[in-house]
Amino acid sequence: MILGHNYIGGQRSAQGDIRLQSLDASTGEALPGEFCQATEAEVDAAARAAAAAFPAYRNLSPERRAQFLDAIADELDALGDAFVAMVCRETALPAARIQGERGRTSGQMRLFAKVLRRGDFLGARIDRALPDRQPLPRVDLRQMRIGIGPVAVFGASNFPLAFSTAGGDTAAALAAGCPVVVKAHSGHMATAEAVADAILRAAERTGMPAGVFNMVYGGGVGEWLVKHAAIQAVGFTGSLRGGNALCRLAAERPQPIPVFAEMSSINPVILLPHALRTRGDTIARELAASVTLGCGQFCTNPGLIIGLRSAQFTGFVEQLKGQMAEQPAQTMLNRGTLASYCKGLEHLHGHPGVRHLAGAAQGDGQAQPQLFAADVRLLLEGDELLQEEVFGPATVVIEVEDTAQLRAAIQALRGQLTATLIGEPDELLAHAWLGELLQEKVGRVLVNGYPTGVEVCDAMVHGGPYPATSDSRGTSVGTLAIERFLRPVCFQNYPDALLPEALRDGNPLGVLRLVDGVFSREGLV
Amino acid sequence: MILGHNYIGGQRSAQGDIRLQSLDASTGEALPGEFCQATEAEVDAAARAAAAAFPAYRNLSPERRAQFLDAIADELDALGDAFVAMVCRETALPAARIQGERGRTSGQMRLFAKVLRRGDFLGARIDRALPDRQPLPRVDLRQMRIGIGPVAVFGASNFPLAFSTAGGDTAAALAAGCPVVVKAHSGHMATAEAVADAILRAAERTGMPAGVFNMVYGGGVGEWLVKHAAIQAVGFTGSLRGGNALCRLAAERPQPIPVFAEMSSINPVILLPHALRTRGDTIARELAASVTLGCGQFCTNPGLIIGLRSAQFTGFVEQLKGQMAEQPAQTMLNRGTLASYCKGLEHLHGHPGVRHLAGAAQGDGQAQPQLFAADVRLLLEGDELLQEEVFGPATVVIEVEDTAQLRAAIQALRGQLTATLIGEPDELLAHAWLGELLQEKVGRVLVNGYPTGVEVCDAMVHGGPYPATSDSRGTSVGTLAIERFLRPVCFQNYPDALLPEALRDGNPLGVLRLVDGVFSREGLV
Repeated sequence: MILGHNYIGGQRSAQGDIRLQSLDASTGEALPGEFCQATEAEVDAAARAAAAAFPAYRNLSPERRAQFLDAIADELDALGDAFVAMVCRETALPAARIQGERGRTSGQMRLFAKVLRRGDFLGARIDRALPDRQPLPRVDLRQMRIGIGPVAVFGASNFPLAFSTAGGDTAAALAAGCPVVVKAHSGHMATAEAVADAILRAAERTGMPAGVFNMVYGGGVGEWLVKHAAIQAVGFTGSLRGGNALCRLAAERPQPIPVFAEMSSINPVILLPHALRTRGDTIARELAASVTLGCGQFCTNPGLIIGLRSAQFTGFVEQLKGQMAEQPAQTMLNRGTLASYCKGLEHLHGHPGVRHLAGAAQGDGQAQPQLFAADVRLLLEGDELLQEEVFGPATVVIEVEDTAQLRAAIQALRGQLTATLIGEPDELLAHAWLGELLQEKVGRVLVNGYPTGVEVCDAMVHGGPYPATSDSRGTSVGTLAIERFLRPVCFQNYPDALLPEALRDGNPLGVLRLVDGVFSREGLV
Repeated sequence: MILGHNYIGGQRSAQGDIRLQSLDASTGEALPGEFCQATEAEVDAAARAAAAAFPAYRNLSPERRAQFLDAIADELDALGDAFVAMVCRETALPAARIQGERGRTSGQMRLFAKVLRRGDFLGARIDRALPDRQPLPRVDLRQMRIGIGPVAVFGASNFPLAFSTAGGDTAAALAAGCPVVVKAHSGHMATAEAVADAILRAAERTGMPAGVFNMVYGGGVGEWLVKHAAIQAVGFTGSLRGGNALCRLAAERPQPIPVFAEMSSINPVILLPHALRTRGDTIARELAASVTLGCGQFCTNPGLIIGLRSAQFTGFVEQLKGQMAEQPAQTMLNRGTLASYCKGLEHLHGHPGVRHLAGAAQGDGQAQPQLFAADVRLLLEGDELLQEEVFGPATVVIEVEDTAQLRAAIQALRGQLTATLIGEPDELLAHAWLGELLQEKVGRVLVNGYPTGVEVCDAMVHGGPYPATSDSRGTSVGTLAIERFLRPVCFQNYPDALLPEALRDGNPLGVLRLVDGVFSREGLV
């Protein structure tokens, strides 16, 4: 049932000559159906359709946009077993995972619908006129956030639903009032089509303007998209190289635009001695499970494990070796991902400061979990290799001499999505400086947990200093993600009837507003 | 009493050989005192001092930082008549304006102190653990914003106090918990020294870490600063060319950093017919005053006046000609500014689509106010000239045929700091589409006012789409400016004692928090 045409302003379009095929992730064989690579004219049309939809869409009430997101959620939930089977074929991810991810993706849409109804994303602020103020009167000033404009979304290979066509970036942009143009990921084009169809059905059902959602297929078409004058921001999840390339393109435009790229993180885990003494075997088992979960294909995969030189740590490393050696090989998302993983392993194997501790030789087709140990000097001396994410089920253990060296090792780390502290209550308190230092390096600090679970909620931060992301002020998971696609506008001396509803005297939306420096949901009297 | 040494970590430093002099803005003569251009080593030391201060400074309670800002405000207020006279000599701005700007600058510091005490800038969010949730439990997740790191501030020539050494960028960065390195503006180095001394006195008095404030002198040293690995964000107010250059430098760093550059805006004013009929003469008088206020050296100076073809508009243009012809010449901030103004006028004079309507020939030393008329086609066809800010007391009138052409003309505009609508209540309602369209182009929309006044308050937006600024999601005036220098951090499963105060169960700071999706100041039970 695959049409394979691009999605432009509510219509399907297939003007180009280049046909693409999706591959079975496990066998590498072409799957049925063809996808039409978008032409430059089609990318232009998609961006223009988004721009044309922007004024009407951004001016819809938050409630209307919430209904749209809820409808998308319902359509996603209704995608059935055949859909799940197709996603599994394209990604080699197991059905249970895809079912869970479908629920996460629809849940994400519903959570943004809640944010829209709550209304604080609008950031409404009112400073009332002070006509008698000396030496000068103050005029009435009101502020709220509006959508930044059409957003280009580049989905991730590793989350074909939650970080892709209808993923977090799309949900956040649509919630913010920004129409979207998705560049369908080449790793799951059939999945993308089914999801795009679901979004279009929801758009029609809730009366959204044509052009609120658009999608183009093809390699290389992303550059046209990012360069297009109508596009006002970019959301991306993928490699450091890919993210950097998009940032460069965006910065070189006649009108530069922001890029929110979530890229590369090795997610250090720091193990404190008392914890290793009391529960080293459990930690070894849990860490091995976290490293190999989903074949290690998580942005928050723990790629660096740091411990203080001690008998406990030596024993722990032995236990971890045993655990890692027992983990089975798994099929990766696609052959390119496997090739990258193998290349990353080769670099580690070939480095004189790195020792291989556990893991079977790479066979054909599947990724073998691997454990390495590296000399702390690699970190302290800024060796590139150790800082680079090896995407897959591998991790590197580092032993530091003492807390002074631990501090230096952490200071030498680049920006990360997460850092994890494993410790007993007493030693966590005694190492309070660790948490403070880690905050300056990462978007999320965990205590006694594993970074591979990323909850979609208000308090989540899936972001962090470069190279974890291109802009540490954003998050690509959780409700704060909406802020990336909003900008403030001030209304000075505006007639009440012309103001957006959120700023009118009577506060008809009932949103929380900062009025003369005090938060209130009351109308003005 | 000018020492002229750079400010590094609470000390003064003069390692370089290059000496600079400040010039009298009216006569062009060198003023007493010499300033030592910073060496690359000194810039490095200043950035390192800021980085060294960051951990201690960001971890101070909001109340402690508020005390620091209040102390700066007191020190600024205490700068006396001799200080005002010196600023006037360096900038040719009148004493009353400088006195007012001093009050605005200290008021800005006190307003950010209020923001710190209010605490909502922290953006505290708590999602409590749901251990019984199915299919998976939720762990405790808490989020707040922390300072992004040391900030480089490039002051503006046209606001030697409010947008400079202790100006809005410095106030916002210090409030956010970010130490600052100021690149002193070459147009008012003596002013910068007096203000820096005031900040240092306040820092000492309130026990701030050495390195919380640093300042370097010299041309070209800004590049070292922006490229320095310790600097994490840049605040800039100035020319489009200067801002673009900083953005490029920042994007090309091994670790790219955000630049908040406020650059170029022509601030269109749209005149509706009924308003012209009922009060055209008043509007002409007020607009002429706004265009020539402070010698037209405001970022929000109205540089484009658009009206619908009509007898009223023709009559208004005649009145404006009369008003503009009567405005006196004024001395600009420095010779370079005057030279730029004259060059901008030459381009307008030389353009076949532009007619000169009023203004005496440029004499020697002072800027003559000038009025031009341009063909609307220049705007519709994207002529660069019309879109470029001519910094000084000049403005351009454009007549449009009808509302369709008005819409097209506005759509052709680049991003702006402000847009202004002048109209009677009935016609404003009838042209509701105008306000909606203008929102998509600007940071602030005014009704029946003039853009040259920029109130410092919660609701102000002094920002807007490129080229008004490099990032439309920020503002450089008003309390929202603090958000540019903050980034979110998530704390997962954290022991209460290790959490920042804002996120502890008991809410000891009493800040507004989003707890399980509901705003509250209550502690958790």
